[in-house]
Amino acid sequence: MFLSNCWYVAGWSHHFQANHAVARTMLGEPVVLYRSNDGGVAALEDRCCHRLAPLSKGRVEGDDLRCMYHGLKFARSGQCIEIPGQDVVPPCARVRAYPVVEKDCWVWVWMGDPALADPALIPNALRHGDPEWWMQTGELAYEANYQYINDNLLDLAHLSYVHENTLGRNSMAWANSKPQVTRIDRGLRISRWVVNNPAPKYLDQPPGTTTDMWTSYDYMAAGVFLLQTRSYPSGAAAQCAMQEPSAEPLWTTLTSQAVTPIDERHTVYYYSGCLEKRFATEAQSLAQFAVFERAFAEDNAMIEAQQQVIWKTPEPRMLGTSSDHALNQFRRLMDELMAAEGDERAANRAPPLAAEG
Amino acid sequence: MFLSNCWYVAGWSHHFQANHAVARTMLGEPVVLYRSNDGGVAALEDRCCHRLAPLSKGRVEGDDLRCMYHGLKFARSGQCIEIPGQDVVPPCARVRAYPVVEKDCWVWVWMGDPALADPALIPNALRHGDPEWWMQTGELAYEANYQYINDNLLDLAHLSYVHENTLGRNSMAWANSKPQVTRIDRGLRISRWVVNNPAPKYLDQPPGTTTDMWTSYDYMAAGVFLLQTRSYPSGAAAQCAMQEPSAEPLWTTLTSQAVTPIDERHTVYYYSGCLEKRFATEAQSLAQFAVFERAFAEDNAMIEAQQQVIWKTPEPRMLGTSSDHALNQFRRLMDELMAAEGDERAANRAPPLAAEG
Amino acid sequence: MFLSNCWYVAGWSHHFQANHAVARTMLGEPVVLYRSNDGGVAALEDRCCHRLAPLSKGRVEGDDLRCMYHGLKFARSGQCIEIPGQDVVPPCARVRAYPVVEKDCWVWVWMGDPALADPALIPNALRHGDPEWWMQTGELAYEANYQYINDNLLDLAHLSYVHENTLGRNSMAWANSKPQVTRIDRGLRISRWVVNNPAPKYLDQPPGTTTDMWTSYDYMAAGVFLLQTRSYPSGAAAQCAMQEPSAEPLWTTLTSQAVTPIDERHTVYYYSGCLEKRFATEAQSLAQFAVFERAFAEDNAMIEAQQQVIWKTPEPRMLGTSSDHALNQFRRLMDELMAAEGDERAANRAPPLAAEG
Repeated sequence: MFLSNCWYVAGWSHHFQANHAVARTMLGEPVVLYRSNDGGVAALEDRCCHRLAPLSKGRVEGDDLRCMYHGLKFARSGQCIEIPGQDVVPPCARVRAYPVVEKDCWVWVWMGDPALADPALIPNALRHGDPEWWMQTGELAYEANYQYINDNLLDLAHLSYVHENTLGRNSMAWANSKPQVTRIDRGLRISRWVVNNPAPKYLDQPPGTTTDMWTSYDYMAAGVFLLQTRSYPSGAAAQCAMQEPSAEPLWTTLTSQAVTPIDERHTVYYYSGCLEKRFATEAQSLAQFAVFERAFAEDNAMIEAQQQVIWKTPEPRMLGTSSDHALNQFRRLMDELMAAEGDERAANRAPPLAAEG
Repeated sequence: MFLSNCWYVAGWSHHFQANHAVARTMLGEPVVLYRSNDGGVAALEDRCCHRLAPLSKGRVEGDDLRCMYHGLKFARSGQCIEIPGQDVVPPCARVRAYPVVEKDCWVWVWMGDPALADPALIPNALRHGDPEWWMQTGELAYEANYQYINDNLLDLAHLSYVHENTLGRNSMAWANSKPQVTRIDRGLRISRWVVNNPAPKYLDQPPGTTTDMWTSYDYMAAGVFLLQTRSYPSGAAAQCAMQEPSAEPLWTTLTSQAVTPIDERHTVYYYSGCLEKRFATEAQSLAQFAVFERAFAEDNAMIEAQQQVIWKTPEPRMLGTSSDHALNQFRRLMDELMAAEGDERAANRAPPLAAEG
Repeated sequence: MFLSNCWYVAGWSHHFQANHAVARTMLGEPVVLYRSNDGGVAALEDRCCHRLAPLSKGRVEGDDLRCMYHGLKFARSGQCIEIPGQDVVPPCARVRAYPVVEKDCWVWVWMGDPALADPALIPNALRHGDPEWWMQTGELAYEANYQYINDNLLDLAHLSYVHENTLGRNSMAWANSKPQVTRIDRGLRISRWVVNNPAPKYLDQPPGTTTDMWTSYDYMAAGVFLLQTRSYPSGAAAQCAMQEPSAEPLWTTLTSQAVTPIDERHTVYYYSGCLEKRFATEAQSLAQFAVFERAFAEDNAMIEAQQQVIWKTPEPRMLGTSSDHALNQFRRLMDELMAAEGDERAANRAPPLAAEG
């Protein structure tokens, strides 16, 4: 089950070079993306309507894409515009075209009804491409359903365990913090103070330094994580009465992450790490990101292992704990959005009422 | 779905050395082949009737094959002729034996009713083993249903696209040619002129040389491709009013190819390349075959990719084009042959009519 | 189908080091084993009751095991004793605990009803850990159902074929011997003389030496093989009228082997080779075991090949031979034990009779 009417990250802008077709599977559907002559990215069904060969093995020709099995050529609208050996191209010779928007160094694809593809629904990645900020980028493939990755990102208590030697910094500060969870449009806002946390080594703080971190993120359907962490001297949280701080932090860390389902059993995860240049050198930004990559490999190992257990369990049942609050809310939100989508499809299918006699 | 009553290539003669058992899966059935004492090749069910161990892990003993799990010995008729530790061998201790014919350097196995195994139904490979001709041989495994390989070989327009840098020689000549398709017994004959085609580099023709090629092949059930290409100076096609030429060609190229289903999802493909010694050196023959092998790897990549798309598509539907003419005819021919086979089996199963009272 | 109420070998004692959790799949169930503070080995369900992460990725803390996803801690009883961020641990927060006994260098796990876990049912491995005996140990993974490994061990006639170059010593002595098969409690006893068998090279016997070997093993549910071979000068079997000998042998070889189902399609096989120190050097013991390991790789190749054939055969049917006697008896014994287990479960499920009115 996927939410169709939603923007999904198909990759980083730099994945889509001129004159190259790129294959992606998104929500179980084969999609081919290519940067066309005008510099924009197009997304088509990756399946020629003729013999079903993948168009991603084809050739970009200007704004069009030619299947390299028997030569059919498609416009970015999805319409076939040339069939070699044949004068007439029937209108039904076409493949599906997907709305695409390139924004914040990410290429977003709308997987549902194109009529509903409102670019205003695209979440705003944090400082991607801002010249005042260092930005590191990465991606990771999961053999797991996307929901377990969402679950993980919605319960950061796991930092003290899964990431005890990386992001958790051998502290129980994350496990002991309690977030506030607020519903926002198509997502949740999750905020907390993490107090007396050891400062990160990659920022070259003196040994033993601790900070209070105001950590707040929006988690947007269907799986976009936009987190800022503002670090203050220890004691700041109490001074703010555990409310959101207004003072200038020592430094701010930003990360934007996107979870895109490949299919029910595979997912891809795109993530950035951003540090403001006035607070950190490029070397520090790279050192921070190296910690991120080690940590995300720890998540990957844990979640894939969890998923294997779930797949092998005939009737998996989970016992709720108090730390499941946000992830349960988000699962309900996703269920609502998917149910609404189903209702809409059902309504569109409903026959018109007969005129009364 | 396979055509059972048909000869299939199980391998090149040189695959079957004396005293070696060779395992093949053909049409989903496990088959063991071995060259027996008399030099002939025998084919048995590759599954001991005792504990179902594969006989291909066994030992060839003269004309017989011994299972090396518990020592049962089988004659080439399939009859078990020895059970260690037991004096009597029951007649039901037997495995299936398949009719085998070795012909034209290929070993052919009849997969259906042995009573119908007529060697006259074996297609004649072109100049295999003829000392006046160079002959190169190869084989390739496919993760794909055999039908998509047949389809590909029945529409050579793909040479201009899939093989643009190899067999297609960066020319639209193949895409622009229209073949004549004629039904023949258990197959199709497909003939055409390919005009103004660049001459192949491997024959050391001067740069810019073009030829007109009379290209004709028989495509025989269940997947045997027998092609001759006669090359003439450009203009020859028009001089012949696009009919079959009778004049001596500059040179002739022959290739015979056989598509053998392993199972519904895997196929093996055997192919030769033959050049007449009076027209070409051995080095030229090897250079030609190197082009063939690159081209067949191109086919393999395209067809396996097509097959992956088809497997992932819930209800795959193909849009017909004018170049599908031959492959559609061949699919109908195969359907007819399989339907006839089904009727025959049904007839054999039908109870005799009750005697009237 | 597995026999649940049975002890299964989960590994050698040395597999379970202090402070390490070890994952095993046994009879299709995920099990985590760890050596706790008191030196004993505990076995729990390898699936946290919270989000189903494997506890084998957790941390041993004294006698307890902590899940390293969100920090739940479990006692060796299976009871959860700590949920971070939560004061109360509900009693239903628990995982299954399995009875464990460490005996004869093997760790045994009872996979069925804990109330029935009688340590007296554990078969006695032969001289494991006895300081007077050399002991070599190994293990091997199979992609096969455990029954085919049992079958193999219950018909040693295969030594003359599968192992002709290793244990069979190029002799038909094993194929020609007839064992006596006796039912014992939860197993079979299988005994025979193997006469005029070439002496093993690894004991440095003069070339051409043959012996008569009294070979007797108990094969215990669900797959424990306990074999002794006593070697005598050729002629001894006849002198004993083919009955069990009472004289001191030239030397004795012992091997204990355990077949543990991983799941329906995978199995693990643990085995030892023991030689008495007064008869053999350590080098001879190692040389013997090298032959065992080559032989067990031969079994592995044959049985996995057999299993592949069986999986691909729509309705596999086996033809019985006289050498199947013991394996058929053992299959019946297993069927009886499993049927009894099913009856018991059914009885436990039966509602109490209504009191008469």
